[in-house]
Amino acid sequence: MAYDNLTLHTDKYQINMMYAHWFHGTLNDKAVFEAYFRKLPFGNGYAVFAGLQRIVEYIKELRFDEPMLAYLAEQEENYDPAFLEELRKLRFTGHLWSVPEGELVFPNEPLIRVEARVFEAQLIETALLNFLNYQTLIATKASRIRQVAGDDILLEFGTRRAQEADAAVWGARAAYLAGFDATSNLRAGMRFGIPTKGTHAHAWVQGHESEETAFERFAAALPDQVTLLVDTYDTLRSGIPNAIRTAKKMESQGKRMQGVRLDSGDLTYLSKTARQMLDEAGLSYVKITASNDLDENIIFNLKAQGAAIDSWGVGTQLITSADQPSLGGVYKLVARESGGEYVPVIKISGNPEKVTTPGLKETYRIVNRKSGKAEADYIALKHEDDMLKGEPLNLFDPVHPYLSKTVEDYEAQPLLKEIFRNGEQVYTLPGHEEIREYHRSRLGLFWPEYMRKLNPERYPIDLSPAAWELKMNLIKQHQKQ
Amino acid sequence: MAYDNLTLHTDKYQINMMYAHWFHGTLNDKAVFEAYFRKLPFGNGYAVFAGLQRIVEYIKELRFDEPMLAYLAEQEENYDPAFLEELRKLRFTGHLWSVPEGELVFPNEPLIRVEARVFEAQLIETALLNFLNYQTLIATKASRIRQVAGDDILLEFGTRRAQEADAAVWGARAAYLAGFDATSNLRAGMRFGIPTKGTHAHAWVQGHESEETAFERFAAALPDQVTLLVDTYDTLRSGIPNAIRTAKKMESQGKRMQGVRLDSGDLTYLSKTARQMLDEAGLSYVKITASNDLDENIIFNLKAQGAAIDSWGVGTQLITSADQPSLGGVYKLVARESGGEYVPVIKISGNPEKVTTPGLKETYRIVNRKSGKAEADYIALKHEDDMLKGEPLNLFDPVHPYLSKTVEDYEAQPLLKEIFRNGEQVYTLPGHEEIREYHRSRLGLFWPEYMRKLNPERYPIDLSPAAWELKMNLIKQHQKQ
Repeated sequence: MAYDNLTLHTDKYQINMMYAHWFHGTLNDKAVFEAYFRKLPFGNGYAVFAGLQRIVEYIKELRFDEPMLAYLAEQEENYDPAFLEELRKLRFTGHLWSVPEGELVFPNEPLIRVEARVFEAQLIETALLNFLNYQTLIATKASRIRQVAGDDILLEFGTRRAQEADAAVWGARAAYLAGFDATSNLRAGMRFGIPTKGTHAHAWVQGHESEETAFERFAAALPDQVTLLVDTYDTLRSGIPNAIRTAKKMESQGKRMQGVRLDSGDLTYLSKTARQMLDEAGLSYVKITASNDLDENIIFNLKAQGAAIDSWGVGTQLITSADQPSLGGVYKLVARESGGEYVPVIKISGNPEKVTTPGLKETYRIVNRKSGKAEADYIALKHEDDMLKGEPLNLFDPVHPYLSKTVEDYEAQPLLKEIFRNGEQVYTLPGHEEIREYHRSRLGLFWPEYMRKLNPERYPIDLSPAAWELKMNLIKQHQKQ
Repeated sequence: MAYDNLTLHTDKYQINMMYAHWFHGTLNDKAVFEAYFRKLPFGNGYAVFAGLQRIVEYIKELRFDEPMLAYLAEQEENYDPAFLEELRKLRFTGHLWSVPEGELVFPNEPLIRVEARVFEAQLIETALLNFLNYQTLIATKASRIRQVAGDDILLEFGTRRAQEADAAVWGARAAYLAGFDATSNLRAGMRFGIPTKGTHAHAWVQGHESEETAFERFAAALPDQVTLLVDTYDTLRSGIPNAIRTAKKMESQGKRMQGVRLDSGDLTYLSKTARQMLDEAGLSYVKITASNDLDENIIFNLKAQGAAIDSWGVGTQLITSADQPSLGGVYKLVARESGGEYVPVIKISGNPEKVTTPGLKETYRIVNRKSGKAEADYIALKHEDDMLKGEPLNLFDPVHPYLSKTVEDYEAQPLLKEIFRNGEQVYTLPGHEEIREYHRSRLGLFWPEYMRKLNPERYPIDLSPAAWELKMNLIKQHQKQ
């Protein structure tokens, strides 16, 4: 069963195009693709890049094994045996640049650039987008939730509603990178070494003669991690009083209950009342966790009403990114080799946002040295380097030129890092704690107006004059034809 | 790396509850859980059950290996070594019943019933729901799309926007079970033996000097599967004329082009005009495929306007179930062993829909022998069997009793099949073609009013008087306490 290897995790049309390149002897021509998205999700002011670890693991394991080749041969009589031999030899031998995980990213800037034989560059499109799109989406959603939660504890609880198993595990990781504190999924915990947390289910209470017995037995078994679910029968009349009795019994044994969990009803009212009941019983150290279809909007509103909640369990809404379940990341050809040189290429569309920006490009984050804040992201052609020398930089909006401004005292930070060189991994994947720290530090580069959950200011993403000119020239050229 | 095995694909609280049962010596007590959902997705009139193959494979491979046990030991000092020994021995030894894949299912009826040691029954909740929720959701969405597409070809193209890799593959399968004709994902094709289809990308056209050269080269390489993407530069002024020239050249070599693909712009206008251009060129055999964020509503509207589209490529909207990206399936304890007997249990909630229905239950589809159509689904306690003997059956709505009716000449079809008996698989998983056929035949049981995409009639799901009475009695009992 070749299922665990992801080499065939691609669209059939990729193999058909690879075959057609092989057929015409163009399989070794170099091609340059860039991956980017066109629109920020959730109306947020930024996105959080994630997916690189998965992409690196995938690329390193790329190889067609015998069962896969047999499958392809059986599927398409057209496929010449010599083509299948070429597939058997295939390894990733190209270059790949990527933004690091945890970075804040914006529309239309290259997040990944692949420079490789067209035979390889085409094959990896589907899986690369599959990983990048989902993980970036979840990291962005998690970062939004962290923005409203302040220093509260955030727990990822979504596995049972996730879109199958990989989403649960890679989604738990993406959430952790962008500021969640733990996940309930043990497989994610083991795979990535991220913290895991859990309480108990209604079934634990239903499975005993009484709620009080259930609570006491749970506390006896796991005295160091007692968070009791209090809504199986009635939160305020049964759950909280029984939890208080159990906490008192624990105190008499020198133990302290960690918390209670509310999972239904009005969380503002219940948490305030529960807090008061716990405090009056001398249990101010017992924390309150809430769950029940939470997202950043509900948490924001509950906090605004003074809900006495210390810790939030977030499930379905995060792990499925329910208000926008896909990021429309694309992977577009920007240059192709012809006679040993790269020729920039374009894709025209009646929809102006869908016209691609041709040529190999770099993105620079322009950071004002005085304020320490990011002024704009600046997309330039690969060979341009004025901005690295600190030359005064004119940031202009080509559609609305009056919006231009010149920056002088700045640092231009290139966002793309070299990950693979000639098929060799030259980048060390950072640990998860390092990525979390990087994400936090990058958030600090931005003024609050870009961070707002609702209706944030648009952060400027500008093309260099040379990149803009190249695009305009290619459009004109195609219109003449 | 224990990642490929799914035994730890569970919430930490399951292991904590297992530990607490082990601690108190109740781990071998039997428990009965039922999985069901409370609300149909998309406002649809029915859902399509899927996920059983995945669940069966998962259960058969359940075992804690050494790295997993080492991980758990390291995570929780509370876990006694003897508990870990108990985990090491764990296999699924219980009973499991399930509705077959492809069946039409409705809210609040048991889709899966697990009767096992609480130690095992608790462990499998998370993964079972993860698989059932996603695959049932996608099968339902796909069945909706099939309802509006009539006999048109439906292609699943969603991998790049899917929520990670498992969703792409299991989603492709779920779509196929519910009426799609093929997927673009080769890994799904190989894993499940389902048909795969693909055309080519914009990059193929951009990678050549001209669109015409690109088309001719593609046709030369793969003459038996030429569907040309015609919108890289301009669909009607460039793409279709170039496709016609290529088709004519193919004809001169005794070949026939399969089709063209439209991927942007107004699909009604473009398809009608393209159809006319192709027909006038004598190419009425060339089919038109459309793609671009399609779902059942867009397809329904395009068809209503007479769009000349033969084949639909459906991506993001299907594979992420974009208008409702999760099914809220739950797994609830309905009975627990006490003194060698099952005691029915209930979960109370301020929200009436969330009150569980206690006891072991069967669902029967009541089919009128005269019309051959389903009258209602009837949920009875496991030991009840009047309806199997064909006794006149009173179907009553307990909340609105005037809605009751009596059926006499009917067949009562039990929906749950026995899958595992004492841990042994006793059910042969049907092949995918058989499941497709089963789904089609089950659709035929229902009157059209339940099949309507928008605002369908509600199909009756009724409780037997005994099941209703048991529920009411347990509610009263808890209120007294």
